[in-house]
Amino acid sequence: MFEAGLTEAQTRIQGGFDRLFEARADLPLHRGMAYATRGGKRLRGYLALEGARLHGAGDALNAALAIEAVHAYSLVHDDLPAMDDDDLRRGQPTVHRKWDEATAILVGDGLQALGFELCLAPEAHPDPSVRADLALSLARASGAEGMVLGQALDIAAESAGTPLDLEEITALQAGKTGALIRWAAEAGPRLAGADSAPMRAYADALGLAFQIADDILDIEGDAAAMGKAAGKDADRGKATFVSLLGLGGAKARAAELVDSAETALSDYGKEARGLIEAARFVIARKA
Amino acid sequence: MFEAGLTEAQTRIQGGFDRLFEARADLPLHRGMAYATRGGKRLRGYLALEGARLHGAGDALNAALAIEAVHAYSLVHDDLPAMDDDDLRRGQPTVHRKWDEATAILVGDGLQALGFELCLAPEAHPDPSVRADLALSLARASGAEGMVLGQALDIAAESAGTPLDLEEITALQAGKTGALIRWAAEAGPRLAGADSAPMRAYADALGLAFQIADDILDIEGDAAAMGKAAGKDADRGKATFVSLLGLGGAKARAAELVDSAETALSDYGKEARGLIEAARFVIARKA
Repeated sequence: MFEAGLTEAQTRIQGGFDRLFEARADLPLHRGMAYATRGGKRLRGYLALEGARLHGAGDALNAALAIEAVHAYSLVHDDLPAMDDDDLRRGQPTVHRKWDEATAILVGDGLQALGFELCLAPEAHPDPSVRADLALSLARASGAEGMVLGQALDIAAESAGTPLDLEEITALQAGKTGALIRWAAEAGPRLAGADSAPMRAYADALGLAFQIADDILDIEGDAAAMGKAAGKDADRGKATFVSLLGLGGAKARAAELVDSAETALSDYGKEARGLIEAARFVIARKA
Repeated sequence: MFEAGLTEAQTRIQGGFDRLFEARADLPLHRGMAYATRGGKRLRGYLALEGARLHGAGDALNAALAIEAVHAYSLVHDDLPAMDDDDLRRGQPTVHRKWDEATAILVGDGLQALGFELCLAPEAHPDPSVRADLALSLARASGAEGMVLGQALDIAAESAGTPLDLEEITALQAGKTGALIRWAAEAGPRLAGADSAPMRAYADALGLAFQIADDILDIEGDAAAMGKAAGKDADRGKATFVSLLGLGGAKARAAELVDSAETALSDYGKEARGLIEAARFVIARKA
C-alpha cells in the first residue's frame, strides 16, 4: 500500500522535475538544481500527494514538487562547508563538492524561489486564494520562524557548548524537520478546503518520530545504505534523542509517536492506510 | 520632489522592518536579518511605493518591504567569501564578517522567505488573487530565470576567462539588477490592476542606467562615500560597461537611458515627476 504509493510518488515527482529542468542544461546553476532534486525518499512529496488523495483535493503534484524543491534547497545549503560540511548526500557528491560553493549557494536560492513559484503557478490550484494560502503557509513553514529557525537553533546549540535538553531539542526539530513535514501533510486538506487538524496532528507525531529515527540511524546506521556519513552527531558530542533518552528509550518514544500518528487519522478509516504505513516506515527505515 | 519622496520611503520602510524584527533579538539569525535590512538607498522600495501612488493602488508598504527583503538577501549571499567576498556593505561589516558564514547563509534564506510572506500577507492587498500574482512575479523575478540567473551568469563569466561582450553583459545585468527593479516598478500597477507596460519600459531603462552608473562609480567613486571597496571590478579585469564603451561612451549611454525612462512615463504628466527625478538620480549619485 504505502510502498506502491511511495514509488508512484517518486516517479511522478521525478518526472515533474525532469520536465522543469529538461530545457536548461547550459549553466551549472540549472544542472545543479536538477541534480539536487534528484533521488531522495520523497516522503514530503508523498505526504502532499497522499493527503490530497485522501481529501479528494485533485492533483497536488505542484505542491509535492514545491515541498521537495524547498527540502532540496535546505539540504544543499545545510551541506555547505560553513554549515554541516558534508561531502556526500544520497550517495553522491554534494552540490558544492560536485561544482563549487558559489554554485551551491545559488542552487539553493534558486530552488527556494522555485518552491514558491510552483505553489503559485495556476496549475497548483484553480483558485488563486488557495494558491496564495499554500504559498504563505510555505513561507512561514520554511522561513525564519520555521525551518530556518530550526537550523539557527542547531548552530546556536553547537556554539553554546552545553548540550540541549529534551524540550529544547524537540523545539529545534519542530523547526528543522517538523515544519516542512507538517506543511506537506496539510497541503491536501488545504487544497481541498478541508479541516487540516487531523493531518497536522499526524504530521507532528510523524515529524518527531522521523527525527528520533534519524538519531537512532546515526548510531546504528550503515553509511553505505544511508549514502552519507554515520555517527557524525555522536562524534561531535551533540545532544540527540538517543543521548537524552538512551537507545531503548528513543526507540520506545518513536514507537509511541507512530501510535499517535495512527490515532490522529482514525476517522479516515481504511483510506488512511498508506499514511499509517508511512509512519511505521519512518522508524523502520535503514537510510 | 524625488528626494522628499525617497526620504519618506526610507523612513516608512525602516519603520516596517523595525516592527517586524523588534520582538526578535535573541538569535544572530534575527539580529542579522534586521541588520541586513537596515540602511541602503531603498530605491526599489521607493519605486514600489511611488508606482502605487501614481496608480492609486492604495498602500504598497508590504510590496516595498518585500522587494527590500529580497534585495537584502541577495546582497548578504553575494557578499559571502565564496561569492564576491566583501567585508563592507553600506559602510558596515557584512553579515558574515559581523557574525559568521553560517549565519549569513541563514539570514539570506530567511529574508527570501520573508519577501514572499510579505507579498502574501493579507495586509499586502485585500484581494488574494492580487497577492498571488505579486508573489508569483516575485518568484520569477528573483529566481533561477531572473536575479539568481544573473548571478550565475556573472560567476560563469569570471571563470570563463574571456570578457563578456555588450550583449552578454546587458543580459547578465537584466537578471542581476534589472529583474528586481522591474518588479518594484510594476508592483504599483499590479496592485491597482492597471497596465504595467509604461512602468516596465521605465524600469528596464532605469535598471540598465543604474548598472552603467555602478560601473562608472567603480572607476570614479570614492570608497568612503560608497561604504564599500571601489575599483574591484576593474582590478579583476571583468568586462564592465566602462571597459566596453569607454568612460565617455558609458556616460552617454546612461544619459540616453534616462531620457528613455522619462519618455516611457510621458502619459502620466507631472504626476511622474518623482520617478523621472529618480532616474536622473541613479546616474548622478556618488554612492
